[in-house]
Amino acid sequence: MASGKELCEGVEWRIRVVDGSSEVLVPPTGLARKVWLRTKGLISGLGMKVRMFLKQAWDMGANDPRKVIHCIKVGLALTIVSLVYFMRPLYDGVGGNAMWAIMTVVVVFEPTVGATLYKCLNRVCATCLAGFLAVGVHWIASQSGDRFEPFVVGASIFILASIATFLRFIPSVKSMFDYGAMIFILTFSIVAISGYRVDKLFDLAHQRISTIIIGTSLCILVIMMVCPIWSGQELHSLTVRNMDKLSDSLDGCVTQYFTNSNGEDDQKLQGYKCVLSSKASEESMANFARWEPSHGRFNFRHPWKQYLKIGASMRSCAYCIEALNSCINSENQAAESIKKHLSTSCLKVSSSSSSAIKELAESVKKMNKSPNMDLLVEEMNSAVEELHNDLKSLSHLLNPSTTAENQISATGLVPFMEIIPVVTLASILIEISARIEALVGSVEELVEESEMKDKIVAKEEKPEGTMKALQRV
Amino acid sequence: MASGKELCEGVEWRIRVVDGSSEVLVPPTGLARKVWLRTKGLISGLGMKVRMFLKQAWDMGANDPRKVIHCIKVGLALTIVSLVYFMRPLYDGVGGNAMWAIMTVVVVFEPTVGATLYKCLNRVCATCLAGFLAVGVHWIASQSGDRFEPFVVGASIFILASIATFLRFIPSVKSMFDYGAMIFILTFSIVAISGYRVDKLFDLAHQRISTIIIGTSLCILVIMMVCPIWSGQELHSLTVRNMDKLSDSLDGCVTQYFTNSNGEDDQKLQGYKCVLSSKASEESMANFARWEPSHGRFNFRHPWKQYLKIGASMRSCAYCIEALNSCINSENQAAESIKKHLSTSCLKVSSSSSSAIKELAESVKKMNKSPNMDLLVEEMNSAVEELHNDLKSLSHLLNPSTTAENQISATGLVPFMEIIPVVTLASILIEISARIEALVGSVEELVEESEMKDKIVAKEEKPEGTMKALQRV
Repeated sequence: MASGKELCEGVEWRIRVVDGSSEVLVPPTGLARKVWLRTKGLISGLGMKVRMFLKQAWDMGANDPRKVIHCIKVGLALTIVSLVYFMRPLYDGVGGNAMWAIMTVVVVFEPTVGATLYKCLNRVCATCLAGFLAVGVHWIASQSGDRFEPFVVGASIFILASIATFLRFIPSVKSMFDYGAMIFILTFSIVAISGYRVDKLFDLAHQRISTIIIGTSLCILVIMMVCPIWSGQELHSLTVRNMDKLSDSLDGCVTQYFTNSNGEDDQKLQGYKCVLSSKASEESMANFARWEPSHGRFNFRHPWKQYLKIGASMRSCAYCIEALNSCINSENQAAESIKKHLSTSCLKVSSSSSSAIKELAESVKKMNKSPNMDLLVEEMNSAVEELHNDLKSLSHLLNPSTTAENQISATGLVPFMEIIPVVTLASILIEISARIEALVGSVEELVEESEMKDKIVAKEEKPEGTMKALQRV
Repeated sequence: MASGKELCEGVEWRIRVVDGSSEVLVPPTGLARKVWLRTKGLISGLGMKVRMFLKQAWDMGANDPRKVIHCIKVGLALTIVSLVYFMRPLYDGVGGNAMWAIMTVVVVFEPTVGATLYKCLNRVCATCLAGFLAVGVHWIASQSGDRFEPFVVGASIFILASIATFLRFIPSVKSMFDYGAMIFILTFSIVAISGYRVDKLFDLAHQRISTIIIGTSLCILVIMMVCPIWSGQELHSLTVRNMDKLSDSLDGCVTQYFTNSNGEDDQKLQGYKCVLSSKASEESMANFARWEPSHGRFNFRHPWKQYLKIGASMRSCAYCIEALNSCINSENQAAESIKKHLSTSCLKVSSSSSSAIKELAESVKKMNKSPNMDLLVEEMNSAVEELHNDLKSLSHLLNPSTTAENQISATGLVPFMEIIPVVTLASILIEISARIEALVGSVEELVEESEMKDKIVAKEEKPEGTMKALQRV
């Protein structure tokens, strides 16, 4: 709304300029005036763009204050790490290499706890590994004499950098250690090559590691203490939200079709599109959530991967809703009598399906198996059965061999083409209900796995449980 | 195939171990032997995992040698930049800060030219901007006296880091300057705060900028000289490849349904899934392609965004193919007579649609408007028309009021339920053909825009053309 208003103002303004220049053109005052008008126009246009940009930024901040909090957290962490510079003993302690602590904070600080932990752990481990390796390579190089030293160091950098870069392409490595591989190359190159110029190489490696540890610990502290945003929690909420959207879209579309109402909220109807486009964000969230310790109701090793399966099931429903939408907007209009004939059962299927999805959302939200689920699925299936029967009886409307001639004219024989859109819609609805059953299955798997993990954690917390677990291993 | 074989071997091996341990268990030789067997098993298991990992890596390299070339390029660039350390004058020239050149190469080197250019330009511009700003802030801070200096510097870091982090959330900034914003924070913090300890701050800023320029120029040279991979070219090929896959899937599915053949290549049938999942990669490629200079047949400012529209159109077709697939695998089997009745026209629609998509792929590949396109679309539309007619005549098969009683028994009256799958399939096919027309539209737009850009570039290359272009502006 607001940006639309802004746009309107922009358009109005342009019209005014055009008016102005056409008025001016009657007495042609020459190039100077033209240039002035154009410059004025450019400046005003720029001002308008800046205003729109600021408005967009303000709206974004107002809609999601957590983004603003994240920015303040980054500022806070950077200001704290700057203290290293201002405090003499700390600065001397890291041999003037305090810069690396700042660099670590800037590079490692991400909006969610999971992403930050992933980067922190990768950075620390890769730095340690590369540091030790580089010191070793430097020792070998220094043993090979002054003449060969550059060649040994150069060759080792070439080989290790190539291998590490190659590993970054392998999917399993990429999802867990992509950042680590990059830091490995970085640290190895810097430490190995510094050996040629820096005398106290071991000190350099030690300083780099300690500054990185200062930076990462500060990041972890700030990210987890000040309004933490957990990737896992985000993924969980996204899944629940998407289920609600799916349910609203499904119900909304079918209701709109059969009641011919255009009053439905368009945003609600288009909600399934969010489901279609959230694959990438689900994957990255699930990836980061693995690094998070237990938080809220989620244990460490909560079955995050199962959320991806649920996401895939939801998308398969959303594809069908997309096809449903195309039936609704189809040019071939269906006969009203057929619509009426099927409307009750179609609406029943859609409402029972959408309440099944709603219940699933509730079940994921509370992370327990809903006692009503089986009942709702049964209801959905019986609605589908009813729709099947109604479809069967459609043939009576079409096939008058079972009815008397006068009845035919009374019911009004419907052209076959006018049945097609409704029949297509009905069969897609039936397909959606089948896909919802698959969705129910994946949600149940999630709940079961999470309960199992809960039990394991509960057992491990008791000492005798640990003993038993050890014996079992 | 190969990994499947590996897997089989793994399973076999496990069985052998189990056999072995059960044989051994007859004379129970105690804990030591058990531990030995378990250790042996663990080591063999680990060896197997390592072997499988290496096999996977080898396959990846063999399938896409460009990945291996990229790794060699990274090694090469790093080895060259190391020369700065080994050459005394160069090393002294950057005041011992050669490390930053190495860091730049590691961080900035990406597989495609576009991504590397994006990072290079962002890094250089952000470093310059932040460097100047930081020197300015340091000057202000030093004027405010020793007591207030830390506070002025700290506050400026806090404010600028928060603002820059916030800007990274805004989509338009994120797509163009995300990396630049991070580098801005990094450079500003380091330079501003170093002013507190380093006397020659201007030298520090200067050294940082010059090392970064050394690193980025080297990266740009290596990435563009040695087997360059262009994001634009990749996006272009991906689009063409996806169109081919879409066409094969569509034709394959319908043919399989009507000919009841299971001999179709499953990978070919599932090709449309690639289209469904390539949104994210298309977006990132289009984003990077904007930074690339003209290469091959693509000018700078080639209409890359249009590829995203084509991608969206292709996905809307792929959603329908997904729905089509569900009809094909549906439990409600269609009556053979109905299938036969519609098979000719359905097969015609699918083959004409898929050859239209193939022609579109060809048109995108050659980047010109195909002369056959209109003909093919016409052919597709007439096939759709034929299918419409066949659907209409279906009612005769169902509605015997127009036929004599004996004919009914001859044709065999089909239960209405057995028509539904075929009718659904047919109406989805009709929907797909409508969506292909939208796809044709977006491909034509791309071709037109690209030809227009070509003309502009050709004009600008002639001096008189440039003059005219200037006058027009």
